[in-house]
Amino acid sequence: MTSYRAWAAPKPGAALEPFEYDPGPLGADQVEITVEHCGICHSDLSMLDNAWGFTQYPFVPGHEAVGRVTALGANARGVVMGQRVGLGWNAHSCLHCDPCLAGNQHLCRELQPTLAGRHGAFAEKVRAHWVWVIPLPDGLDAAECGPLLCGGITVFAPLRELGISPTARVGVVGIGGLGHMALKFCRAWGCEVTAFTTSAAKEEEARAFGAHHVVATGDAAALEQLAGRFDLIIDTVNVPLDWNGLLAALAPKGRLHVVGAVLEPIPVPAFSLIMGQKSLSGSPTGSRGALDSMLAFAARHGVAPKTEHFPMSRANEALDHLRAGKARYRIVLDADFG
Amino acid sequence: MTSYRAWAAPKPGAALEPFEYDPGPLGADQVEITVEHCGICHSDLSMLDNAWGFTQYPFVPGHEAVGRVTALGANARGVVMGQRVGLGWNAHSCLHCDPCLAGNQHLCRELQPTLAGRHGAFAEKVRAHWVWVIPLPDGLDAAECGPLLCGGITVFAPLRELGISPTARVGVVGIGGLGHMALKFCRAWGCEVTAFTTSAAKEEEARAFGAHHVVATGDAAALEQLAGRFDLIIDTVNVPLDWNGLLAALAPKGRLHVVGAVLEPIPVPAFSLIMGQKSLSGSPTGSRGALDSMLAFAARHGVAPKTEHFPMSRANEALDHLRAGKARYRIVLDADFG
Repeated sequence: MTSYRAWAAPKPGAALEPFEYDPGPLGADQVEITVEHCGICHSDLSMLDNAWGFTQYPFVPGHEAVGRVTALGANARGVVMGQRVGLGWNAHSCLHCDPCLAGNQHLCRELQPTLAGRHGAFAEKVRAHWVWVIPLPDGLDAAECGPLLCGGITVFAPLRELGISPTARVGVVGIGGLGHMALKFCRAWGCEVTAFTTSAAKEEEARAFGAHHVVATGDAAALEQLAGRFDLIIDTVNVPLDWNGLLAALAPKGRLHVVGAVLEPIPVPAFSLIMGQKSLSGSPTGSRGALDSMLAFAARHGVAPKTEHFPMSRANEALDHLRAGKARYRIVLDADFG
Repeated sequence: MTSYRAWAAPKPGAALEPFEYDPGPLGADQVEITVEHCGICHSDLSMLDNAWGFTQYPFVPGHEAVGRVTALGANARGVVMGQRVGLGWNAHSCLHCDPCLAGNQHLCRELQPTLAGRHGAFAEKVRAHWVWVIPLPDGLDAAECGPLLCGGITVFAPLRELGISPTARVGVVGIGGLGHMALKFCRAWGCEVTAFTTSAAKEEEARAFGAHHVVATGDAAALEQLAGRFDLIIDTVNVPLDWNGLLAALAPKGRLHVVGAVLEPIPVPAFSLIMGQKSLSGSPTGSRGALDSMLAFAARHGVAPKTEHFPMSRANEALDHLRAGKARYRIVLDADFG
């Protein structure tokens, strides 16, 4: 019998406790990763709290893992024993449905997230289908790139998927875990970058991350001054915004793209889309190809999250830090199972 | 003094009356078109009723004009005296703003519609900037192609602008003046076409226009059966729909595109966009390039609206016919000023 040591919440809202489980036989398409580092994402909190209704307990969080391959299923492809790899939100795709065959494994009709029906990477080891076990290119610091694998790809994928030009004017709403990486990616992409933040204290850092301009979110007058300006606005927050103001701030053919999952429906006046040929869109993480190109791009441009590190044995403290809105800007846990 | 004979409404909701006006000197960039035919569009009714608040009275409707060039301003380009031309929703673009310079004259920052601040084409003659005076290609019946110039381009432009592939599965909601042309264009584009209609009586005609499948709009069970199916759904109606059902009917990366301007905001759950990487978008008419390519495509594929003709002197009767929902499917007025 195999046993993986991990940190698990026994029920919604509970603190993590030491937990061991038998992962069963390694699937033929699976890869075992021995975890070295794991980022914490807001969606770990949502899952811990069962905010989306599909958390199973005991629940092991963690879906921004970096580690080394320590076991390979018979059909596993693309990685070798001992290789440094990453694992993000997704852990299994079928590879034979239409979206998979079109290269959109993240839109697989049988997609299985790393945290649904399986245990996550606040653990000694974690498993996933080989297609989601991502080789890390040279030039990335393994200790820092966990957050790229979920938060990073989430804000990078729209640039690639929407065909955003380096000539574009891009706005980023919310300068937190996702938003600060969005500023870095958009700046490296070559765009003119505007940060929207509710926190005046973040202005200087937003500029350091890559913003050319910083605007206070909720300053209706400032937003009105920007009418017709943006080719793309990426919304990384999960609260209702001045949707009409943001749609008006789009240039003709502009796109308002949400990656923060606000629960209240977004009320969209058809006229505001029609007159300026605008769109409202969303996307989850990204395909395998998007992840590979994101990591290569990050390595080439020196894009990395700004992180705070905690030993994994202090994961509860780290989660409280994130819940309190104090993370600057992304937390990484360093495995210390010994 | 020049004088143009026309049909004008003296106030909101009033019947059209004979009207003459002096259009003033012909602008250097303007072209005078002597009208032979003019389609009637639902937006003529909206403007007659001042539904959008910017109608000026006396108001001459008409923005789907076909006729011949009978006067040319000194700087007019692209057409010659006597040429058969068309004029649609737009009558003036600056040609020097960013959208114009990018080829998006329909998104011009100084755009002037044919019906705003000037008189329309229920008239002996009408004027417009040369960029919106569209040469008609050989092979189109001049008496039938007025409706292509507003209704037609409105449903054709999304196929071109959104990069729709002939392999796509496309749904068209509303089989009326716009929708029946959408079916024809989508079929000629090579797509698998589904018509959504509230009128069972239109099923046979919808198939004749190009639909492979016909579904009753509002049949929630039928729509649920189609979950995940459509790459594009074009909404041509101006009433609230089962938005969640339509979003669910989109395939991964699918697009719900509105060209019918429903007044109530469309409530969009962010999750439904994010999970399937979907979008909600809109567009008005199309650029000069889109109009030229639409007419060439229509000529090559034999796409034409199904029309009913009235002499222009019976325009009131024709408008009543349209208001009553009886038009099958687009009305064209034939000029009879004598």
